[in-house]
Amino acid sequence: MQKIESVKEFGGYLNRYQHESVRCGCRMTFSVYLPPQAEHDAVPALYWLSGLTCTDDNFRTKAGAQRYAAEHGVALIIPDTSPRGAEVPDAADRYDLGQGAGFYVNATRQPWSKHYHMYDYVVEEMPALVEANLPLIPGLRSISGHSMGGHGALIVALRNPQAYRSVSAFAPICNPLQCSWGEGCFGAYLGDDKSTWESWDATCLIDAGAQPPPLMIDQGTADEFLAEQLFPQNLQAACEARSLPLTLRLQPGYDHSYHFIASFIGEHIAWHAEALRR
Amino acid sequence: MQKIESVKEFGGYLNRYQHESVRCGCRMTFSVYLPPQAEHDAVPALYWLSGLTCTDDNFRTKAGAQRYAAEHGVALIIPDTSPRGAEVPDAADRYDLGQGAGFYVNATRQPWSKHYHMYDYVVEEMPALVEANLPLIPGLRSISGHSMGGHGALIVALRNPQAYRSVSAFAPICNPLQCSWGEGCFGAYLGDDKSTWESWDATCLIDAGAQPPPLMIDQGTADEFLAEQLFPQNLQAACEARSLPLTLRLQPGYDHSYHFIASFIGEHIAWHAEALRR
Repeated sequence: MQKIESVKEFGGYLNRYQHESVRCGCRMTFSVYLPPQAEHDAVPALYWLSGLTCTDDNFRTKAGAQRYAAEHGVALIIPDTSPRGAEVPDAADRYDLGQGAGFYVNATRQPWSKHYHMYDYVVEEMPALVEANLPLIPGLRSISGHSMGGHGALIVALRNPQAYRSVSAFAPICNPLQCSWGEGCFGAYLGDDKSTWESWDATCLIDAGAQPPPLMIDQGTADEFLAEQLFPQNLQAACEARSLPLTLRLQPGYDHSYHFIASFIGEHIAWHAEALRR
Repeated sequence: MQKIESVKEFGGYLNRYQHESVRCGCRMTFSVYLPPQAEHDAVPALYWLSGLTCTDDNFRTKAGAQRYAAEHGVALIIPDTSPRGAEVPDAADRYDLGQGAGFYVNATRQPWSKHYHMYDYVVEEMPALVEANLPLIPGLRSISGHSMGGHGALIVALRNPQAYRSVSAFAPICNPLQCSWGEGCFGAYLGDDKSTWESWDATCLIDAGAQPPPLMIDQGTADEFLAEQLFPQNLQAACEARSLPLTLRLQPGYDHSYHFIASFIGEHIAWHAEALRR
């Protein structure tokens, strides 16, 4: 991996890297915030998965997370939201399919299946890469994300509960099988057989017996996508049916934007840092 | 003034307004963050002046300032950096002249002098407007800014020391008469007679006897514009020659970006809040 940018922030460094991804079959860009503690010691990592249309730039620029990462001595690992490049298939007229909309699954259908393996990329390729090259404590990881990236954080943690100390999400897509964003992407990436979709749906994974690590969700009540796309109540019902603990906080008056994330990211990072210390 | 957007953040509201500006002769857009304390009481105001190419959006999105404004109960008043619109003269091939580059002066030369009165706009028109329409304590103001906006904050406070409790700046253009940014803009806006430029230059104003309110400057040592454009050492020498207190903090390794601002905006807002309480 090649460092292409480094900016000092809160006493640490916000770096950007590029590498040739094996799983995505293209050159990928990602950002890492290394807190000041990483100057002398290896630190734990919080992965952040961004939402539709984002790159690695949105979270690092808009969320105000670096302040808290510096305070708690946690690295932020911020991948892109899809494979990228002229050789990578895209849906130019759609913001919710193709580049910028990888949905953190492994696509099985042409033309997507050659490059769109964001699940393997986030779960295997990236951790191996950054833990080999940066001052991170191997295997000490938590994960969070927003909207499509909240869905990604949930399924990544539910499918690999031993690999993550904690998982949180802001306004996640909790039940993609039931919403148009999920139906559009899953149909394209996974094909028409909906039974193959279930292993990529947080609510279905809970229904099927997944054992989540500690799990916290913040959801704004003024979120413009809440009624049509997000369905936290479905995930909540699935957890209740199995008596699984879920911290679901409805935040009155907050919308779907980074201003909502900024308002609560400090509490999320403090919560993950606590889980990562144990 | 008309509210065109409102987003909840840190318990308060980040609002955007438009109004017909008399001084700029065009429709102007600005943002205000009202902290939660403004729900019940009038609050003091910190004006923020942005740098070249910015609108009111950059600071509200990238600086992470709202968190501290909420903590200290201070409103953030965020004007645009120039008049705007199809009828407003521009220099389409230059980022450092015309729209996005008003330099917080009152232009006296054609074609700029019809609209480019950002000084009067910031010092007179905006405070009168927002204090008449929002829960602000009349006249209780401090001011800060970045780069071109740091220059703006300095000259606004030096020319009106009774109107601002405190002034701070991030990487300000301290002596525009000596740098190409200043020469380019002042020549266009004010004409060739450099003696007319001096009343818009912080270092010259100090030389000429201005009495600043409490004054703090943060400057990154890795700032790519430090050597050619900013000249904090000139302002420092002018203050020393008159035995005026100046807190100039050189921050090792920090650049000119919003990541630098984000790293220290909390300290600035706490410092202004203290001055605004006295």
